[in-house]
Amino acid sequence: MAKRIAAFGEVMMRLQVPGYELLSQASSLNYSFSGTGVNVSSALARLGHTGYLISRLPTNAVGDAAESYLRKLGISQSFIVRGGNYLGMYFLENGFGARPSRVTYSNRQESSFNTAPESTYNFADIAKNIDIVHFCGITLAMNDNVRRHMKDLARAVKAHGGTVVFDCNYRPGHWGEGGYTKAKPHYEEMLQLADIVMMNEKDAMFTLGMHTDQIESQEQLMELIPAVARQYQISVIAGTHRNINGDNTHSLRGFIYKDQSFTFSKMLTFSIYDRIGAGDAYTSGIVHGEIQGFSPEKTVGFAAAAGMLAHTIVGDTPMSSESDILRAMTEAVGDVER
Amino acid sequence: MAKRIAAFGEVMMRLQVPGYELLSQASSLNYSFSGTGVNVSSALARLGHTGYLISRLPTNAVGDAAESYLRKLGISQSFIVRGGNYLGMYFLENGFGARPSRVTYSNRQESSFNTAPESTYNFADIAKNIDIVHFCGITLAMNDNVRRHMKDLARAVKAHGGTVVFDCNYRPGHWGEGGYTKAKPHYEEMLQLADIVMMNEKDAMFTLGMHTDQIESQEQLMELIPAVARQYQISVIAGTHRNINGDNTHSLRGFIYKDQSFTFSKMLTFSIYDRIGAGDAYTSGIVHGEIQGFSPEKTVGFAAAAGMLAHTIVGDTPMSSESDILRAMTEAVGDVER
Amino acid sequence: MAKRIAAFGEVMMRLQVPGYELLSQASSLNYSFSGTGVNVSSALARLGHTGYLISRLPTNAVGDAAESYLRKLGISQSFIVRGGNYLGMYFLENGFGARPSRVTYSNRQESSFNTAPESTYNFADIAKNIDIVHFCGITLAMNDNVRRHMKDLARAVKAHGGTVVFDCNYRPGHWGEGGYTKAKPHYEEMLQLADIVMMNEKDAMFTLGMHTDQIESQEQLMELIPAVARQYQISVIAGTHRNINGDNTHSLRGFIYKDQSFTFSKMLTFSIYDRIGAGDAYTSGIVHGEIQGFSPEKTVGFAAAAGMLAHTIVGDTPMSSESDILRAMTEAVGDVER
Amino acid sequence: MAKRIAAFGEVMMRLQVPGYELLSQASSLNYSFSGTGVNVSSALARLGHTGYLISRLPTNAVGDAAESYLRKLGISQSFIVRGGNYLGMYFLENGFGARPSRVTYSNRQESSFNTAPESTYNFADIAKNIDIVHFCGITLAMNDNVRRHMKDLARAVKAHGGTVVFDCNYRPGHWGEGGYTKAKPHYEEMLQLADIVMMNEKDAMFTLGMHTDQIESQEQLMELIPAVARQYQISVIAGTHRNINGDNTHSLRGFIYKDQSFTFSKMLTFSIYDRIGAGDAYTSGIVHGEIQGFSPEKTVGFAAAAGMLAHTIVGDTPMSSESDILRAMTEAVGDVER
Amino acid sequence: MAKRIAAFGEVMMRLQVPGYELLSQASSLNYSFSGTGVNVSSALARLGHTGYLISRLPTNAVGDAAESYLRKLGISQSFIVRGGNYLGMYFLENGFGARPSRVTYSNRQESSFNTAPESTYNFADIAKNIDIVHFCGITLAMNDNVRRHMKDLARAVKAHGGTVVFDCNYRPGHWGEGGYTKAKPHYEEMLQLADIVMMNEKDAMFTLGMHTDQIESQEQLMELIPAVARQYQISVIAGTHRNINGDNTHSLRGFIYKDQSFTFSKMLTFSIYDRIGAGDAYTSGIVHGEIQGFSPEKTVGFAAAAGMLAHTIVGDTPMSSESDILRAMTEAVGDVER
Amino acid sequence: MAKRIAAFGEVMMRLQVPGYELLSQASSLNYSFSGTGVNVSSALARLGHTGYLISRLPTNAVGDAAESYLRKLGISQSFIVRGGNYLGMYFLENGFGARPSRVTYSNRQESSFNTAPESTYNFADIAKNIDIVHFCGITLAMNDNVRRHMKDLARAVKAHGGTVVFDCNYRPGHWGEGGYTKAKPHYEEMLQLADIVMMNEKDAMFTLGMHTDQIESQEQLMELIPAVARQYQISVIAGTHRNINGDNTHSLRGFIYKDQSFTFSKMLTFSIYDRIGAGDAYTSGIVHGEIQGFSPEKTVGFAAAAGMLAHTIVGDTPMSSESDILRAMTEAVGDVER
Repeated sequence: MAKRIAAFGEVMMRLQVPGYELLSQASSLNYSFSGTGVNVSSALARLGHTGYLISRLPTNAVGDAAESYLRKLGISQSFIVRGGNYLGMYFLENGFGARPSRVTYSNRQESSFNTAPESTYNFADIAKNIDIVHFCGITLAMNDNVRRHMKDLARAVKAHGGTVVFDCNYRPGHWGEGGYTKAKPHYEEMLQLADIVMMNEKDAMFTLGMHTDQIESQEQLMELIPAVARQYQISVIAGTHRNINGDNTHSLRGFIYKDQSFTFSKMLTFSIYDRIGAGDAYTSGIVHGEIQGFSPEKTVGFAAAAGMLAHTIVGDTPMSSESDILRAMTEAVGDVER
Repeated sequence: MAKRIAAFGEVMMRLQVPGYELLSQASSLNYSFSGTGVNVSSALARLGHTGYLISRLPTNAVGDAAESYLRKLGISQSFIVRGGNYLGMYFLENGFGARPSRVTYSNRQESSFNTAPESTYNFADIAKNIDIVHFCGITLAMNDNVRRHMKDLARAVKAHGGTVVFDCNYRPGHWGEGGYTKAKPHYEEMLQLADIVMMNEKDAMFTLGMHTDQIESQEQLMELIPAVARQYQISVIAGTHRNINGDNTHSLRGFIYKDQSFTFSKMLTFSIYDRIGAGDAYTSGIVHGEIQGFSPEKTVGFAAAAGMLAHTIVGDTPMSSESDILRAMTEAVGDVER
Repeated sequence: MAKRIAAFGEVMMRLQVPGYELLSQASSLNYSFSGTGVNVSSALARLGHTGYLISRLPTNAVGDAAESYLRKLGISQSFIVRGGNYLGMYFLENGFGARPSRVTYSNRQESSFNTAPESTYNFADIAKNIDIVHFCGITLAMNDNVRRHMKDLARAVKAHGGTVVFDCNYRPGHWGEGGYTKAKPHYEEMLQLADIVMMNEKDAMFTLGMHTDQIESQEQLMELIPAVARQYQISVIAGTHRNINGDNTHSLRGFIYKDQSFTFSKMLTFSIYDRIGAGDAYTSGIVHGEIQGFSPEKTVGFAAAAGMLAHTIVGDTPMSSESDILRAMTEAVGDVER
Repeated sequence: MAKRIAAFGEVMMRLQVPGYELLSQASSLNYSFSGTGVNVSSALARLGHTGYLISRLPTNAVGDAAESYLRKLGISQSFIVRGGNYLGMYFLENGFGARPSRVTYSNRQESSFNTAPESTYNFADIAKNIDIVHFCGITLAMNDNVRRHMKDLARAVKAHGGTVVFDCNYRPGHWGEGGYTKAKPHYEEMLQLADIVMMNEKDAMFTLGMHTDQIESQEQLMELIPAVARQYQISVIAGTHRNINGDNTHSLRGFIYKDQSFTFSKMLTFSIYDRIGAGDAYTSGIVHGEIQGFSPEKTVGFAAAAGMLAHTIVGDTPMSSESDILRAMTEAVGDVER
Repeated sequence: MAKRIAAFGEVMMRLQVPGYELLSQASSLNYSFSGTGVNVSSALARLGHTGYLISRLPTNAVGDAAESYLRKLGISQSFIVRGGNYLGMYFLENGFGARPSRVTYSNRQESSFNTAPESTYNFADIAKNIDIVHFCGITLAMNDNVRRHMKDLARAVKAHGGTVVFDCNYRPGHWGEGGYTKAKPHYEEMLQLADIVMMNEKDAMFTLGMHTDQIESQEQLMELIPAVARQYQISVIAGTHRNINGDNTHSLRGFIYKDQSFTFSKMLTFSIYDRIGAGDAYTSGIVHGEIQGFSPEKTVGFAAAAGMLAHTIVGDTPMSSESDILRAMTEAVGDVER
Repeated sequence: MAKRIAAFGEVMMRLQVPGYELLSQASSLNYSFSGTGVNVSSALARLGHTGYLISRLPTNAVGDAAESYLRKLGISQSFIVRGGNYLGMYFLENGFGARPSRVTYSNRQESSFNTAPESTYNFADIAKNIDIVHFCGITLAMNDNVRRHMKDLARAVKAHGGTVVFDCNYRPGHWGEGGYTKAKPHYEEMLQLADIVMMNEKDAMFTLGMHTDQIESQEQLMELIPAVARQYQISVIAGTHRNINGDNTHSLRGFIYKDQSFTFSKMLTFSIYDRIGAGDAYTSGIVHGEIQGFSPEKTVGFAAAAGMLAHTIVGDTPMSSESDILRAMTEAVGDVER
């Protein structure tokens, strides 16, 4: 039951210092192209669906390189527009143990995506040709222009009977001071349009300004998520709780709230190779489970395993097939596969 | 008391994706040349013996590269024959944490070794010039031609009073369906010729079809190995039990069965850098202990430490000297050696 | 006037020693995936057409990597079939000055492509969906099975009114002894089906066994090519004469024979970075010129410039856009483009 | 007679594809930090002077890396200010033979340097502490803010009796359409302030709109440069004529116009490794010759040799010592120096 | 309250096998320049002070490379002298898990530093221009000439009212047999000159030959350090106890003894990336705390955190800023910083 | 007619900056092990003889790495002794075009080879087991100890009827001031012991102090070489004249003087990849020709082609087989070999 899924979002160039040197020590960078939309669209293509990206790339050698790279990831390019001059970029210095990884952005506001004029995309045509659309809160933080694109597209997809996925993903650095207040109305608008939402209790409290007397995050979650689902009429809300352990491992537990009830995955603890983009693997797992009609138990377990595997993969973008993920759900780490 | 040891076996070209990328992400490969025979012969050379390899390499640039590489490893090349066109190859993608390593073979049946015609090797001459010969169950899986070579050589060595070492090493992928049934008579023939055998209770149960009512592997081992030794008149049987832990470490415990009694090493737990070929380091440790007349306690401890160190070495082939291994047996991990 | 072009051919894994070391000196390889069909299909995609590949890739990690790579090159994958276990491979050691480059093949006959069973491809369906099909003499050298595929497909395309391109490309090493005699009937059959043929006087003399009293290759060409065109009813024959100079440069001159007359490009002399695959760039230039209805002068100049640029590109596969090639036709080497 | 020289200009991050791949083929980049000011300041430091840079770098990890890199180049950092968020960047794909190198800029207008507010630099203080200041036409193309900085600083240096060097370096891409008209008044203002000017007849004709009936560039030069010197009261005008040959070599001839007379260097022909920044080495040679009181013959020969050597050095920034350059002026290419 | 700090010591060239190969497996080395003096001087420069190095570098390409590298590290070079022909070098093979790292020295006695003639440095001038000088026991082990330099400089600094820091750092390999006896008088002389001393109970027992009946190292420390402080009139003594754990982590606990009382840091346990040079980071933390007038609790915590972070940094030389260290003192390992 | 050839000489570690950066720009080095003895012994092994090296290597990780490397090169190690602590090293920065390559030595006098005590080698035993011994003038420059080893070994080989080859190879840097005078008696002693000598007219004039009125080097050669042969009773004298051209090519012409007559090779002009060690390839060609009883024409042509090919090979050590060299003698540069 393969579906046509389009993600709307910026393509970023990731410039990563190889190994564990700092930018001021090294002399080379590995580059790749990613972004939440790229990650979700590519992950779902790898799970057997058709994954589109709706984005705008510069008409120069950097845009050409991005385009090739997206093709390599298996993304269908019908909805990619070329125009403008720049690609958003970020530098990544890998942390080690007690030293956290560090991301330094280059200017993003002037990127081809963030400066796309109003008539860039043909949303009516896109909406006709897809089943599901995916948005992310990072994109919502960009500027009014981009926000208008997002909402127009979400409305067009709803109008054609499609499904809207929205990942709250609030990034304080992108909204600046007074960010929650600025962000709230836009988040509310997106939540009203969304069918599947990725978030946890922190989004409810900080972005939506909801209140709870609970102190433990688990109890806050149990109280607030049903309230959000009710208020914005959302069918599925899913998310994770993450713990960063001292010994280079993380612990992750996924939840899904659907039909007025919560389902949780096992708590998974695992070594981290590349943390960035792992949340998008979780999202893809939830979306895939919903498409395939998995039980909530299977969906949340599948999503958590997809997220776990994404931490073991080089780069932002998940690379696991459905069978890789199903095998990882059995939990016994295997010997060399030959 | 240095001995002359020859291993009979295929040389494989190992093509490893550097770091943790997949073949579909990367663009370069590190290559080296290995194989069970290469590993055992080189490891014993490093322990002070003369290590020969009996094998056949193609007469082209790939064969030249393999030959140089084996020289670098310290293998004496008197018994290497050049002929045919191909070398067996395998691709290795390194796993990380929850994602296991993956091996993909290229075609091996057409390799110079696996297509060596009957009169390729002068077994009588070889048998005269060596003290010990080593064989491996992987080689036994190749084809009738290769199996005939193995048995002819084993018989020639026995006829000259030499020692035969056989490592059972059953690989399901190489025998295909109905593999155990196909393999059994060949294993039995080799066991009848062997003096030192590497195996554990799984080989006894699956390959030799032996039965036990025991459920725990330790008890199965204690029951079956003496039976095997008795039935096939084998002086020394040795092997390991391995546990793969969740946190990128393995636990390994070696045993040796000799003079009707078992000796076990301590359970060693250690971080893994490169798992492939570590079993061959263990074998080399057992053979070295037997040559040197170590006590069973020292032999099995030495072999287990050799196996542990091989997991910390880049590539398939052990690189540790006797003093490296003896120091590792003391168990305290040291600070930088300067 | 973009066309749909499919190339039928094997995908090879190229394993190149970086820099100028020999395989017996180095320890890493750069890999990519190419083949005449890959090169032509990708080059034409880059020139604005839809480029398909008709081929068979193994169902394992190597096949996955090839598939990603072909996507990156811009090849449409609708006609790629997965099956079998192996990919043809070749090792490349770069020459320098007086030391020529060296290619060592790994086994190719057992590749997924060369062992594809009869019903692998749906030729009727393919023929319906393409305008032009491309074949190469290297493929013709493989085995009877592959030759049958080629001829069936060529006939299907002709039956649907499509155009057949055939590049003679006789490789002595692939046909073995008595090769010309073995090859001749197959070449004749392909020429009878072909509309556009890549060849020069050497193919006429050696492969087709034609006779001429001329001694200079230019005069042999002028005599034999019209005879070939007449005999096999070929609309367009094109090819090159190449000179390898002492100073790391080659000289190349293209010709096209069409409507009973010859047109020659200027003699181009240029530095060589990567010689392999440059002939396929020339072919693509000829095909593109014919599709676009260029004058013979422009077509042959465009093809020669495309071939020249392909010698400056890393890897087998041409990477130049139409505007890159048109600019290179003006002949003045430019300063840095900024 | 070491002098204190400050260059005013932007620091750019150079992101270079290693080897000869395109951005759409490769996966890593070498990075360094350069810019005309960096190159001139560092080259003069290497010739024994104190070289300062007047610039603004972002307060993040990229700015830290730039700062370390400039220190490594030997640049004194007293006049570097930290502020803003971005560094100008450019991607460099190396050309080969018939394929020219290609530069793709990332957004530069938003860089820390190009957005430096008015009171960023303390020009009075700087002018007191230096002997010579260097400016470049690329900087003049940036924006009104930057132009104001340039002119304020030039005036301050003049007021303190210092020397002003101005390199015309007109880059069409940076001024856009109607560029010459836009640029002319700013160039005129800078020329009125300048003592030493780098330019040739093309700058006179296009940027300054001067007229000549001569057709050959040599004669245009001989007519226009004296006119420029007269009109703007410039003591020294120097520059080069460059020829790009077909065989990966360039030919370069330098001139200096001083005391109403021209002196020319020999025509140098040499192989090119890295063309970018070589003009800055020539400039540094002229400035050094003037400081040291070399004869015009020695100055122009020294500058041309410095320029030639800079083409053989990796990166934009000259790395030659005075003795390296003096040895290169003797013209016989040496064997290995040991 | 930035101070001027000079370290006296040898610059070593570190030649490190990348990854985990042995020197007999690999074919490339990463190089950098370090040494206790380099590390301390650079670390203090990064904490906001002016860091000088007093050393002698060869007048050749290796010396040039070292000089650039030290500039990059932020070291002020006023007190570096050029002369002699050689630089001390060491090869580093990284250990993994159960296999320790291994250092192999190249000849050091003939280095420019260790052969510096008597009048090489102008100690009177240096002493006038700095506030603090740092020495290390490794330097003390070199030869009589170097020892004389050390003591002359220490006396000059004391004479100008400066502070003397001495890190005992006894390396058995450098003193050879009977080392403690040879070393003792020199250590005593340095301790009499020192204000701040880095050591622990082992130095007191072995190098100074002091006696204690205590058996536990903690109790030995509590007894001996006050005795040392008393005997040699030392204001501040600081040091660490280190534990090497089985799982690739170390545990570190710092102490400071000052004003007759001990203060201890928390016991920190952390993953190790590069162990070499981490002690110098601890020293720098103590010196910085003393300069800034931190409380003993803050000083020892700051020093321990600085030491911990240095284990996560590539190379010998600490790279952390004051804010990096202060953040690490809070102990919660953070997620990606963006 | 394979012979046993031993070369006496130092093993050097070559530390080469990859690409064209300077030591002060780069951060990694490629390493290999070479030396005149290594090159000649390995080249002759590759031509089918048994090549021994008589040398001394340190008993540490660097010595182990050298030993593995020599094995890889095909050198028989029976006469290699382990002892001492250091290996001679040199840094190599590749030149480009007008910028020459640069070699910087690390300290060599303290190497294991140059400090080998008197009884290190068993010369009587060696002389019994070899047919030919090779010496080089570089070794002669080291110290009295080494010179005594050389002469003792040469005498022992003569006493056993073996052949002595001596390559004059005078390096001014190694003898220091007044070098020719110091060197002369040692050269004379070696020439009296030698059967085959590598030299040209410059050695006769400068090292031996011979006089000629001729001005052109060709005429000097024709006059002086016969005089040398007569005076020292040398059967074969061979050498080359080399020209370094402006365009990255060298021209080389070999000569051999034997039986009172000169034979010259063609003048070969070719591109240079790695110049170091190419003279040793020429020597090996002369020795091989003499062993095989080639005509002087064939010998000198073979040696010149061997020398030419060595310039195209990475590293100091020749890698060509006899068939590679014979093919290169035909002079037409070939296309890719497949």
